[in-house]
Amino acid sequence: MPEPSCPPEKRVFQTYEAPPLGGDQALRLERLRQLMAELGLAAVLVPRADEHQGEYVAPAAERLAWLTGFTGSAGLAAVARTTAALFVDGRYVVQAPTQVDTGLFQILQVPQAKLSDWLIGALKGGGLVGYDPWLHAQATLEDLSAALEAKGIKLKALGRNPIDRIWGRERPAPPAGPVRPQALTYAGKPAAEKLAQLQDTLRQDKTDAVILTQPDSIAWLFNIRGSDVAHNPVPLAFAVVPVTGKPELFIDKGKIGREARAHLAPLAKLSAPTLLASRLAALKAAGKRVRLDPNTAANWFFRKLKGGKGKIVRGTDPCLMPKARKNATEIAGARAAHKRDGAVMARFLAWLERAGGGLDEIAVARQLEEMRSDTQALKEISFDTISGAGPNGAIVHYRVTTATNRKLKAGELYLVDSGAQYLDGTTDITRTVAIGSPTREMQERFTLVLKGHIAIATARFPAGTRGVDLDAFARRALWQAGLDFDHGTGHGVGSYLSVHEGPQNISKRGTTPLEPGMIVSNEPGYYKAGAYGIRIENLLLVEEARMIEGGERAMLGFETLTLAPIDRRLIVPALLSASELAWLNAYHARVAEVIGPELGPADRAWLEAATAPIAAVAP
Amino acid sequence: MPEPSCPPEKRVFQTYEAPPLGGDQALRLERLRQLMAELGLAAVLVPRADEHQGEYVAPAAERLAWLTGFTGSAGLAAVARTTAALFVDGRYVVQAPTQVDTGLFQILQVPQAKLSDWLIGALKGGGLVGYDPWLHAQATLEDLSAALEAKGIKLKALGRNPIDRIWGRERPAPPAGPVRPQALTYAGKPAAEKLAQLQDTLRQDKTDAVILTQPDSIAWLFNIRGSDVAHNPVPLAFAVVPVTGKPELFIDKGKIGREARAHLAPLAKLSAPTLLASRLAALKAAGKRVRLDPNTAANWFFRKLKGGKGKIVRGTDPCLMPKARKNATEIAGARAAHKRDGAVMARFLAWLERAGGGLDEIAVARQLEEMRSDTQALKEISFDTISGAGPNGAIVHYRVTTATNRKLKAGELYLVDSGAQYLDGTTDITRTVAIGSPTREMQERFTLVLKGHIAIATARFPAGTRGVDLDAFARRALWQAGLDFDHGTGHGVGSYLSVHEGPQNISKRGTTPLEPGMIVSNEPGYYKAGAYGIRIENLLLVEEARMIEGGERAMLGFETLTLAPIDRRLIVPALLSASELAWLNAYHARVAEVIGPELGPADRAWLEAATAPIAAVAP
Repeated sequence: MPEPSCPPEKRVFQTYEAPPLGGDQALRLERLRQLMAELGLAAVLVPRADEHQGEYVAPAAERLAWLTGFTGSAGLAAVARTTAALFVDGRYVVQAPTQVDTGLFQILQVPQAKLSDWLIGALKGGGLVGYDPWLHAQATLEDLSAALEAKGIKLKALGRNPIDRIWGRERPAPPAGPVRPQALTYAGKPAAEKLAQLQDTLRQDKTDAVILTQPDSIAWLFNIRGSDVAHNPVPLAFAVVPVTGKPELFIDKGKIGREARAHLAPLAKLSAPTLLASRLAALKAAGKRVRLDPNTAANWFFRKLKGGKGKIVRGTDPCLMPKARKNATEIAGARAAHKRDGAVMARFLAWLERAGGGLDEIAVARQLEEMRSDTQALKEISFDTISGAGPNGAIVHYRVTTATNRKLKAGELYLVDSGAQYLDGTTDITRTVAIGSPTREMQERFTLVLKGHIAIATARFPAGTRGVDLDAFARRALWQAGLDFDHGTGHGVGSYLSVHEGPQNISKRGTTPLEPGMIVSNEPGYYKAGAYGIRIENLLLVEEARMIEGGERAMLGFETLTLAPIDRRLIVPALLSASELAWLNAYHARVAEVIGPELGPADRAWLEAATAPIAAVAP
Repeated sequence: MPEPSCPPEKRVFQTYEAPPLGGDQALRLERLRQLMAELGLAAVLVPRADEHQGEYVAPAAERLAWLTGFTGSAGLAAVARTTAALFVDGRYVVQAPTQVDTGLFQILQVPQAKLSDWLIGALKGGGLVGYDPWLHAQATLEDLSAALEAKGIKLKALGRNPIDRIWGRERPAPPAGPVRPQALTYAGKPAAEKLAQLQDTLRQDKTDAVILTQPDSIAWLFNIRGSDVAHNPVPLAFAVVPVTGKPELFIDKGKIGREARAHLAPLAKLSAPTLLASRLAALKAAGKRVRLDPNTAANWFFRKLKGGKGKIVRGTDPCLMPKARKNATEIAGARAAHKRDGAVMARFLAWLERAGGGLDEIAVARQLEEMRSDTQALKEISFDTISGAGPNGAIVHYRVTTATNRKLKAGELYLVDSGAQYLDGTTDITRTVAIGSPTREMQERFTLVLKGHIAIATARFPAGTRGVDLDAFARRALWQAGLDFDHGTGHGVGSYLSVHEGPQNISKRGTTPLEPGMIVSNEPGYYKAGAYGIRIENLLLVEEARMIEGGERAMLGFETLTLAPIDRRLIVPALLSASELAWLNAYHARVAEVIGPELGPADRAWLEAATAPIAAVAP
């Protein structure tokens, strides 16, 4: 596709301000403690969560940041009468103390530190721990409750969120992003068919209804998209799907325009979220068997449904598996999205090489976002771009701000992890490039990471193989050299949906068998703290099992969807086996063949050089 | 060590009779059903199990074989009023119908077929299912009970085993194998120290006592060995270890000779097993917190302890981990045992090659056992030798009998999987050898299995790595060729104890981190049904983590303990990478160096040829 002749209207999706400094945390904490005293609570829990337990939350749900100043994407504050703690994971142990008054909140790292242990220590004489039943998944809360029970500590569900009671007028309004139908040309399957199959499942399982609480499941099922939270094109909503008859979609009607209304009219009854409680009461009173996913559904649902004549059937969200297995239209869309995005990446990498010095992390990330916008197909970026030069590249979840912005310097590596939300697919790609001349160590370690990447990309495996069975393929070359990386090898990816989509993944916790049509990332890395980071990420499509010449059992495998050059200057050919080199050269040939025609002459020439075959080194 | 000059007294450990045909199964089943009617039972369960849930049971506990004729090492019969089923796993789907009257027992394969489903189908109107609470692990029984509960079917613990009530006088006497102390020169750590550490654990966990039901845990803890069941040198016994004071060992006193009594006197009070019930009642009455492992302890213990003032603390058998991590003495013993056993294997393989034609599977297995006996150190073989020629090699758990005995024929493969119980260690080794000229396909597939074996043997991995993380290394070369094998890659091995020892293993279910001192087998295979089987098995010792030149993180690794040549005639050098070939040649050089001096001149000459380096093939 030639570049557009007139500039399109552009939206900017990422900002680079340093995180806000927060307000008067001491005062806010004091007001919370006054409220606790009024309510007779020994402690309260303030998680970074909304009613859907998703990765992104709307500003109105940033209660943890309001209370503590901490802006990370995961965390929980526990506030007792005289002490308070903020629990964060390894990603945020550096960031949290820079944002949080550690005189007010002790910062503890999970999973080494446990919330239950802290509460037991803080509440010596027992007592009530208040929590908002909307903000905790049932399974998590049950585990916590079991751990506290023996110590005389009880959890108390609060009727109103304690932060909301003191946040006041400054609290942002809840999101009201418009809902749009996802056209059949992208979704590939009418919502009515998806609903019929879901209802078949309920019938087979002798279940009367299922409650859906995951916005991406609802978006997938009804073929709609929304814009309530950053980067994930989902509408915040709940749904009750009965085994027969019309589902009921609980969603703020302000989000539903004429087009969405027409699309949804034959599919679902639209109701205000405030009606949810009475609908659950009716299900319970009628003695219905209702499926709920304890890992994702809020405790609130379990509280509303338990007891009485009804029966809660614990089961995973039934949309998870069909959503994960992309249909032929979604697969074609993914290929088209990756072709478009690969052309952007080629233009971007060519630009980066031509630009020479003087660039910084923010300028480079802005350029990449702008080039994606230039496709006129960009709906959103799929997450905040990780743009890390030198030592910043070694921070796995680095997010550049004006406070941390760093120049790209010769002799350093630059790592850029980014993605796009297009109507036909979600992309996620990481490339690490040499600025000036890399050291031999950088090249060797890059090549070890590449060996792991290739081991995943070329893996064949029988049906039933799970991500956990493959994860070590990505690590073996690093392990043999005494190195490793501290994140999973790959996560599932949605189809114009969440860039982190379950249940499939490639990691030590990857217990879901990989099935044809699933998309997962392949992103081994290596991080030298204070020096540089390396990650090579492509998205993979799980292919249908097929027979291998001379073999006996059909084997699954991967098609690499992402098409962009891997920096040849960082590769030590002598460290690659003949078959690894063959994969690399074949991959680069494919990138040149598919992406080349999408580029102007200068970028095409750059791409040809960047994808030229590497000759085998005599052993 | 030169060969002994006078022949030692020999015991024969393996017999080769075809399994007994069983008695009148129809009559026995009829008598069982009469008893069921008298007891008001709709069904009864007859598992292949004893009170310790071990792999081997004494003849007195072979109730399943008595009832059904099935002699496999795992299985369960469910008998209803008019129907009955025998549940076996994939190992026994061929064997079971040859032994069992399928007019009496429907044969079903687990895990595809489920006991609970069968019972629900057979007991349409609900009813009582009788079981012997001594013969079912608590966790298994709870799962079954939960699955049946919703269907109105109840499990009923029987006061006396129903088979024992009808088996009568033909029932063999319970075993009474003498107990002997395991000398400190082999055990490496005094039992008093092990006990003190166990009691420390109980103290830290605020537990008042632990009940040990696993004979190998008891053997390890008290530094004793027994001979109650085949191949595993363990005494059948139970123990109650209080947090302070002397443990009580419940064991038939007829097994305790003077030496054992003197060894045990300072360590434990000896009591008859019949006193166990009153001891548990006392623990319960005193409100004690008692640790029990629901995965291995019989339901009987949970029934005795539940309710009242006491508290059952569910936790794994606390001997499992310290037993699995061999101490320095046990490691030295393992190396000595493998040197001795490697010399036997070299003599045996040399003999096999010299013997030429005319041999059959039984003759070869007898020769191997005799050569192990000739060391004068053999206490037992560690399991019935798997001696499989041609298509019999493709039966993973093949056990040769006079009925299946097959000649070793030119152009076929011969697979022999065997092991020894020596005082200083337990061995387990599989070699596959070419009889005459192998086909190219045999060679190629052998080489793929060898690549998997080498991938495990050479793996480096960080602390925390579990067997599941490594298992696919053994399969990758096969997977890439469209092949696989249907068993785990490796199991834990004891120190003059069980040849199958948990919790460590290398398999898709291997969730225990591998720790220094653990011993695991490395035995990938390939099986072509009706044609041939390939397996290459060595035992591995998990080494201490150490830094690798140029690396950042200490990495664990394996020392290969088993020392015996791998058949060079079956290797296609061109399929091996340079590093794989280097491993093979280095391994063979080590075998020649360590084992060569143990051999006479003819065998040594054979070994030198069998371990000669293989030259690299130009790519």
